[in-house]
Amino acid sequence: MNHVAEIISVGTELLLGNIANTDAQTLSQGLSELGIDVYFHTVVGDNPERLKSAIALARERSDIIITTGGLGPTVDDLTKQTIAECFGKKLEFHEDIAEKIESYFQKIGREMTKNNLQQAYLPEGCQVLENSWGTAPGCAFELEGKHVIMLPGPPSECQAMFQNRAYPYLLKLSDSVICSRSVRIFGMGESAVEDLLSDMMKTMQNPTVAPYAKEGEVMVRITAKAETACLAGTMIDPVLARVREILGDVIYAVDVDSLEETILNLLSENKKTLAVAESCTGGMLSKRLTDIPGASAVFLGGAVTYSNDSKNAVLGVPPDMIEGCGAVSEQVARAMAAGTRRVFSSDLGLGITGIAGPDGGSDEKSVGTVYIALDSEGFTFCRKLNLGMSRARTRITACNYAMDLVRRFLTGLELE
Amino acid sequence: MNHVAEIISVGTELLLGNIANTDAQTLSQGLSELGIDVYFHTVVGDNPERLKSAIALARERSDIIITTGGLGPTVDDLTKQTIAECFGKKLEFHEDIAEKIESYFQKIGREMTKNNLQQAYLPEGCQVLENSWGTAPGCAFELEGKHVIMLPGPPSECQAMFQNRAYPYLLKLSDSVICSRSVRIFGMGESAVEDLLSDMMKTMQNPTVAPYAKEGEVMVRITAKAETACLAGTMIDPVLARVREILGDVIYAVDVDSLEETILNLLSENKKTLAVAESCTGGMLSKRLTDIPGASAVFLGGAVTYSNDSKNAVLGVPPDMIEGCGAVSEQVARAMAAGTRRVFSSDLGLGITGIAGPDGGSDEKSVGTVYIALDSEGFTFCRKLNLGMSRARTRITACNYAMDLVRRFLTGLELE
Repeated sequence: MNHVAEIISVGTELLLGNIANTDAQTLSQGLSELGIDVYFHTVVGDNPERLKSAIALARERSDIIITTGGLGPTVDDLTKQTIAECFGKKLEFHEDIAEKIESYFQKIGREMTKNNLQQAYLPEGCQVLENSWGTAPGCAFELEGKHVIMLPGPPSECQAMFQNRAYPYLLKLSDSVICSRSVRIFGMGESAVEDLLSDMMKTMQNPTVAPYAKEGEVMVRITAKAETACLAGTMIDPVLARVREILGDVIYAVDVDSLEETILNLLSENKKTLAVAESCTGGMLSKRLTDIPGASAVFLGGAVTYSNDSKNAVLGVPPDMIEGCGAVSEQVARAMAAGTRRVFSSDLGLGITGIAGPDGGSDEKSVGTVYIALDSEGFTFCRKLNLGMSRARTRITACNYAMDLVRRFLTGLELE
Repeated sequence: MNHVAEIISVGTELLLGNIANTDAQTLSQGLSELGIDVYFHTVVGDNPERLKSAIALARERSDIIITTGGLGPTVDDLTKQTIAECFGKKLEFHEDIAEKIESYFQKIGREMTKNNLQQAYLPEGCQVLENSWGTAPGCAFELEGKHVIMLPGPPSECQAMFQNRAYPYLLKLSDSVICSRSVRIFGMGESAVEDLLSDMMKTMQNPTVAPYAKEGEVMVRITAKAETACLAGTMIDPVLARVREILGDVIYAVDVDSLEETILNLLSENKKTLAVAESCTGGMLSKRLTDIPGASAVFLGGAVTYSNDSKNAVLGVPPDMIEGCGAVSEQVARAMAAGTRRVFSSDLGLGITGIAGPDGGSDEKSVGTVYIALDSEGFTFCRKLNLGMSRARTRITACNYAMDLVRRFLTGLELE
């Protein structure tokens, strides 16, 4: 049986933009794993009439309703009362929950205000979902084929309650699982990827193939639904092989989080070290590589030579080269790559110089012109890019190209 | 007239939990500033029937509908077609938008696949909201007293498009203006700030005073609603003065976007240059400073000396000092600051060394131990921090402290 779930998050703070609705994300991930479709998220404030309208709608179009928030002790917390009313149920007092709350306050040495006992009232006949991560318990019940699950709003409680209480409840309702693989792509835009995969995307139902644009790159997710994870994996394998065949070497990894991780892994496998020299990217490449714990095993460091003088002082780029060719030039990029390799005694050196903008462009070299050079023992290569984008995007993309250059070099692919 | 807005976010990736709905948060914050009530957020997948049902419902219960997502070039991008259909409008081809997209692809040297031109079709009679941050334009129209605004989904584009395109559109619907001043705070937590300002927060209705936690810092926003901007400004002034009085020198700036901008401005005013030396922050400080256009006027560069050898080779930190005191020590931080100042010939030098984690800690020096040193002509200072946070947060906070140190030094405040 195929279930459709809907998530209703209750809280005026969400509608004011004070917090993002991360609860809905957490629950959606979990429901997706369980093979339960989610068609809608709704956010509604601490207002009983509007909450009632959201519940009534969800009851029509979904068969599992999961709410987050509104279970606490304050007057704003209306979820239980409102839902009980919608489903024609009364609230029942649970002596054992009340005792637990009282003893909690004793333990932390604070006086319990009376409104806290509101948390001991739950819809009659429900299954209590004990909250070991806070004071407000959750609950679940079924009426006329519709399942309602109420979880607390604070993200850490919501996540723990979902994993440990709601997940087992839902598992009993489902007879399938969902598995997916993430294909990471650099050097081809989303529209071109979709163009190449359009036949697969249109014709396939299970597994499905879908591309997503990420910051400066593209991801293709292949998702299968089956009775077991093992079976889903078997269904995905031939599709993944076909995607690899179609897209070729713009795929830089599968089920890896980033280009950063990919090249750090490759450097490690190849026992090579890297140092970088950055001008227009101003430290962003170093920063991104060192975002990854353990980068120090293969990444020795970098020079951010933002001024012309520092290109000479730190990296030994000859002043007359900078004067003659310009700081943004193939020659200087190559000299920066070689210089950083020498200074840091690394196996590979990357040099990046360019015009990130918004100012600094000329007729000859427009904003977005970037040179990326790779230097290794007896080898040097330089690529010129024209990135006509915002300053931020130009910098991100230049770093991505630099990392992809290292990937291509270390895996013996053609450099372009 | 009091408007009620509703946010509809379109994208299956939201329902799968791949991303959190930060767009809805961004828009809600902005709408709240504009004094426009938001009663519902809805998330719906890339499915025309369900999107239609969400639009129909929003049209009944709200008078401003803002959508995010589904404006891109792929077959999944259905927002414009679906909404046009709901409102009985056709899509019109915009030659100028098509040319802009074509020239963008020419500039970046990639072939434009035909599906990209889908982005040049917009509902007839709409106001085009030009997208200077991506390829897909947004649009806005009014029909029978209902306003519809469509914005792209990628968070950076959505935010920029809201601020620069939708905000001015919405402002015209309102008969009052909202003005706000942003007080930026570093070195005091959100709850402490709230505690100090609680009387003002409780008693004031217009202007309002509200604190927001930002990444590693706090912002207090003072907002006034009035007939004219000038009048609103006059209402804010005495409140701002009182906030300054209460919070004192933890306020690093008002109406400036970041610590980065603040210290670049201060360096420029004082005609001083800066160079940095980073170990645990791995280039993040350089990256953040060079995020700001024009940083090169005062920021000369930096050394990312991730390995011990490079601390000596690039910055001249004596190997026996690293051996004796450890790479994470006050002595090494000071030597890095002095070294980078010498190598880059700058007026000020910053040195940061620490243990970002998750590994690398010891009994003596735990994960989160960071030393930050400032070096100037005849002056040196070092501060030890214990940042028991995630790797990412430790790195961000260390950079913030380093920049705040420069601010305090240049404005003659006590260093602590």
